[in-house]
Amino acid sequence: MSRSIHLNLFIHGRGHHEAGWRHPGATRKALTDVSYFADLARRAEAGRFDSIFFADSLELGDGARYVASGALEPLTTLAALARETSHIGLIATASTTYTEPFNLARQFASLDHISGGRVGWNIVTSWVGGAAPNFGYDRTPEHSERYARADEFVEVVKALWDSWADDAIIDDVTSGRFLNRGRVRRIDWKGRFYSVAGPLNLPRSPQGRPVLVQAGSSATGKAFAARHAEAVFTAHLTKASAADFYAELKQATIAAGRRADEVVILPGLSAAIGSTDAEGQALLEELNGLTDIDVGLSRLSNRFGGHDFSTLPLDQPLSRDDFPDPSTVQAAQSRAVVITDLVARERPTLRTLLRQLAGARGHFALAGSPERIADVIEDWTESRAADGFNIMPPVLPAQLDIFVDHVIPVLQKRGIFRREYAADTLRGHYGLTRPVNPHFHS
Amino acid sequence: MSRSIHLNLFIHGRGHHEAGWRHPGATRKALTDVSYFADLARRAEAGRFDSIFFADSLELGDGARYVASGALEPLTTLAALARETSHIGLIATASTTYTEPFNLARQFASLDHISGGRVGWNIVTSWVGGAAPNFGYDRTPEHSERYARADEFVEVVKALWDSWADDAIIDDVTSGRFLNRGRVRRIDWKGRFYSVAGPLNLPRSPQGRPVLVQAGSSATGKAFAARHAEAVFTAHLTKASAADFYAELKQATIAAGRRADEVVILPGLSAAIGSTDAEGQALLEELNGLTDIDVGLSRLSNRFGGHDFSTLPLDQPLSRDDFPDPSTVQAAQSRAVVITDLVARERPTLRTLLRQLAGARGHFALAGSPERIADVIEDWTESRAADGFNIMPPVLPAQLDIFVDHVIPVLQKRGIFRREYAADTLRGHYGLTRPVNPHFHS
Repeated sequence: MSRSIHLNLFIHGRGHHEAGWRHPGATRKALTDVSYFADLARRAEAGRFDSIFFADSLELGDGARYVASGALEPLTTLAALARETSHIGLIATASTTYTEPFNLARQFASLDHISGGRVGWNIVTSWVGGAAPNFGYDRTPEHSERYARADEFVEVVKALWDSWADDAIIDDVTSGRFLNRGRVRRIDWKGRFYSVAGPLNLPRSPQGRPVLVQAGSSATGKAFAARHAEAVFTAHLTKASAADFYAELKQATIAAGRRADEVVILPGLSAAIGSTDAEGQALLEELNGLTDIDVGLSRLSNRFGGHDFSTLPLDQPLSRDDFPDPSTVQAAQSRAVVITDLVARERPTLRTLLRQLAGARGHFALAGSPERIADVIEDWTESRAADGFNIMPPVLPAQLDIFVDHVIPVLQKRGIFRREYAADTLRGHYGLTRPVNPHFHS
Repeated sequence: MSRSIHLNLFIHGRGHHEAGWRHPGATRKALTDVSYFADLARRAEAGRFDSIFFADSLELGDGARYVASGALEPLTTLAALARETSHIGLIATASTTYTEPFNLARQFASLDHISGGRVGWNIVTSWVGGAAPNFGYDRTPEHSERYARADEFVEVVKALWDSWADDAIIDDVTSGRFLNRGRVRRIDWKGRFYSVAGPLNLPRSPQGRPVLVQAGSSATGKAFAARHAEAVFTAHLTKASAADFYAELKQATIAAGRRADEVVILPGLSAAIGSTDAEGQALLEELNGLTDIDVGLSRLSNRFGGHDFSTLPLDQPLSRDDFPDPSTVQAAQSRAVVITDLVARERPTLRTLLRQLAGARGHFALAGSPERIADVIEDWTESRAADGFNIMPPVLPAQLDIFVDHVIPVLQKRGIFRREYAADTLRGHYGLTRPVNPHFHS
């Protein structure tokens, strides 16, 4: 019997392709119009996706000049969408570097209540350099420092989520007793970075703890994921690389004292889908024809901490020496590694590389018919390169509609994707159990 | 011609009366069930209220044992309600002491977009002592320090909200230009407490700036309100006290270089309404009969920074000497003043005082028929003691329904309250103009 797969919809502007917003299949609604996102969420729910997801950045990047960006904040947006959907999971990105654990724990718990147990937190440490000066820092804290803080931050947040027993509320109008304070505990956290007394000021949420999601794939990031993550978004340009990552992370999760199925691994997949392979290819060509060399150079530079690539020739094969050592990059190191590995392997020209990255920023991009897309999804999943995918339509909403109407039925026919929701919570969709509260016996 | 009044619904647990949750007219839904709050918001909108409002506290207070509390977080809750309503304003409390200005400015701007321009920010400095240790502080920063921070915080937030010109987005698919970076500016704020580069990472919101609301009524609080507030919630036990406050704050607003009508003053009003005055009185008696002396003592103590009142006799007249000097209270000083003034004026027994405060925590409470309630509303407004009221039903939803069905029609018949919304934004309802962006010429 084949494995059931998981699908998350990664919502990004008007599509993941850099030039997707210029395509006729992209919405013309403003990115501040929540009705656009509500529409995407309802379409994804109609397709029985496990979840939708918003990335986030705490700065307005330079690319905003040429890329549809400048959008709503994830938590407020997902709260608005919670009441327009009934089953689909809702994953918001939030930073451990620039927020207070009490505020973050509380907003996610509140959203978990509001959505009836459908929330996930994508934990990021905010690598973009432009965020730091928005929060009083001269520069971004070092990579290792950010992860050390993140590790403690997550422990504080978990402790706050567990600060109420599930049965703490009495709510007895006759006796006038509302809350059993003996079933609510202070956490009295005093660590290296944080001091938080607790308890949280709202009851434990439907999922016990919102689902913890993580996406950094540096060595530090993987160690962090092995300890904490219940779902992992990751970027791979080949199945082999994804399979290596998959095996390594499942092993590390076991080594961290957890079961392998306590983490769901979802590589990114950006598919340009046509009714035939040729139509899919033609769409990708059309999108690539709408890209701009300067936009691509600026984005590549951003991936390598500001390194200037504009002096390189556009049409000669690149080599690894043309790039800074990824381990020196104070940014998303894992994405820098993906790019330099690609360069070493394929020796693309700069023009070719920029087009390749325009598709999905270092995630796996392909073009073809619905059957071809379904084949790749099934193959990677059967090969233990993935538990499912982080679906990144190049153009929104048109390419989401095609995925829902034409790829998902193929997956359903093959028996590897749900036809109806079997659960009401995000934990239920991902096959994760509700965490027992370690501080209270039932 | 009579003055048009403004009405805000203050949503608080299952009602403002301390024992309201024990009354049969109170909801039995959990306070974590957003459908309860959605229902209240829709009822208030059907009654043509200007706005709804959630207070907030960053700790779980001791009173939670006996009072329905432990509830959802305001911003996520109002985001969920935004899509269930179309006209009513949505006011969330958030603290300047325990949040980052960039995060707060962004979430409120996002919510202003999501709601189509209906958001207000109730600015608080978080006087409750239990909040500080949830954010790494040994104790609450001093009253004057909190207000100094708040003053700078609000200036930073305004600058962030004004960091995009209203026409910054080009969104031209033909040229591939999305954003005119010349119409977006860094704020480069470097002040005593905050250093924030900016710009904000989302476009200027429908109202330009969410409406600024304030509720502290200490001398410092009033000076702050005169500079920043566009709506003020305030607590008075007599019309005379409200009229003094009204005259003083309007004068101070003018002295701060603003127009008197740039601030809307809304005293709290908690009405126990029956079809006759006797029925209203009977309801209030019934509610008072459900209160508990220990709960009242604990809340009074909390109002005076932890002072112990439990050694005082219950049934002898109090005097001002039984209370600490309000100016020494590191909490909400204005409420402490209201209470000591009442004691000096009326010499109540401790039992009577606790019952009086149980009704509405120092706000004006009355009982009677719909006509009587409407008379008070009209009288205070005509007497320039108020521009309208912060309506605090003692029992929710029952007493809100009665207010909407029986008091509002009387106000409408007298021509002092709208029958239909004349605007789509909170600024529109309150008669406030959209702030011009000082940094960009159109």
